[in-house]
Amino acid sequence: MRLGTRMLQRLPLYLRVLRGMGHEGVRYASGAAIAAALGLDPIVVRKDLARTGVRGTPRLGFPIDRLIPELERLTGADAEMTAVLAGVGKLGSALLCYPGFRRQGLFIAAGFDAAPERCNIILSGTPIFPVGTLTETAQRLGATLGILTVPAERAQRVAEQMVAGGVRALWNFTPAQLEVPDDVLVQREDLAVSLAVLLHRIRERNQ
Amino acid sequence: MRLGTRMLQRLPLYLRVLRGMGHEGVRYASGAAIAAALGLDPIVVRKDLARTGVRGTPRLGFPIDRLIPELERLTGADAEMTAVLAGVGKLGSALLCYPGFRRQGLFIAAGFDAAPERCNIILSGTPIFPVGTLTETAQRLGATLGILTVPAERAQRVAEQMVAGGVRALWNFTPAQLEVPDDVLVQREDLAVSLAVLLHRIRERNQ
Repeated sequence: MRLGTRMLQRLPLYLRVLRGMGHEGVRYASGAAIAAALGLDPIVVRKDLARTGVRGTPRLGFPIDRLIPELERLTGADAEMTAVLAGVGKLGSALLCYPGFRRQGLFIAAGFDAAPERCNIILSGTPIFPVGTLTETAQRLGATLGILTVPAERAQRVAEQMVAGGVRALWNFTPAQLEVPDDVLVQREDLAVSLAVLLHRIRERNQ
Repeated sequence: MRLGTRMLQRLPLYLRVLRGMGHEGVRYASGAAIAAALGLDPIVVRKDLARTGVRGTPRLGFPIDRLIPELERLTGADAEMTAVLAGVGKLGSALLCYPGFRRQGLFIAAGFDAAPERCNIILSGTPIFPVGTLTETAQRLGATLGILTVPAERAQRVAEQMVAGGVRALWNFTPAQLEVPDDVLVQREDLAVSLAVLLHRIRERNQ
């Protein structure tokens, strides 16, 4: 099923709110309650939830225990995707230690680093190997996704090693502009870009 | 001057390419060369660069040493903004150590943490203080922006301490939904949301 980007962006937020309600022992959630918790338009929320196929009960709302698995199915969290991560510095370690990815269906099977002192250890459950073994290990693990948290000047070379190892998509946290084959998907996560937007919004409001 | 979000997002990319060219001794850059380096439409790039007021020279392109300061002015990097950061864990440390923010006009004047062993040290040039002193220190420093990299369950309380200290905008790296006064701007940086979009794009392409 093809979903719009905006809706896709809302799905993890719904899941977070519903899991929170579930932990508190709540069994039913109305579209209005979810919308209020997230500061979203209730009409949009109800439309999104209708896509799950789960029917709400009048006055009670949606049964949380049925809504969560259907939302997970929509986000694809029910089918695990294997990833490798290169660059176990501060940001790379932060990503490896982030517990939420696993719940979203992302399994980071291995990390890689150029510094010997960061290799051959287990970090937050993930083994870290020397970057020289990246291609071979990515292939062996059947990794689909490569996460790049290396210094910008190493990004192109590491991306090539990932692609040679069978990776079909790159999540690029470096500022480097990667040159990869057309069939390799690249998504950039650029804090400089976010910051520029934020600073402009602040200055505009102050005028 | 009001700039569109898309254009704002492109400005730091232009600056990065132009600074790279400058470092290599290049003096003029054509709109087409910048567009090619970033994989953007040349028409869009030329339109954006026209907003700087810098005139290009036929066959040579734009003088890089004049284009960079005008682009910096447009992004607001010429007027420094003071920020405080709370939560000096892995992600917080990564942000404190990121050299690019300063060049964009963001000065992180102080960090705060709840763990005594992380306080009263200097990390990458930034002093780290106990979180109990946040409100007072933010006020003294004249901080406009607060960066939240604390655990989600502490985010609301820390946000309130920041707002009490005069912070007018929050850059929220936690999954928490913050309740703040209407005149406080909040920008979320949610990796779960980015990941959901990325995983869906990968799965769609594989179908």
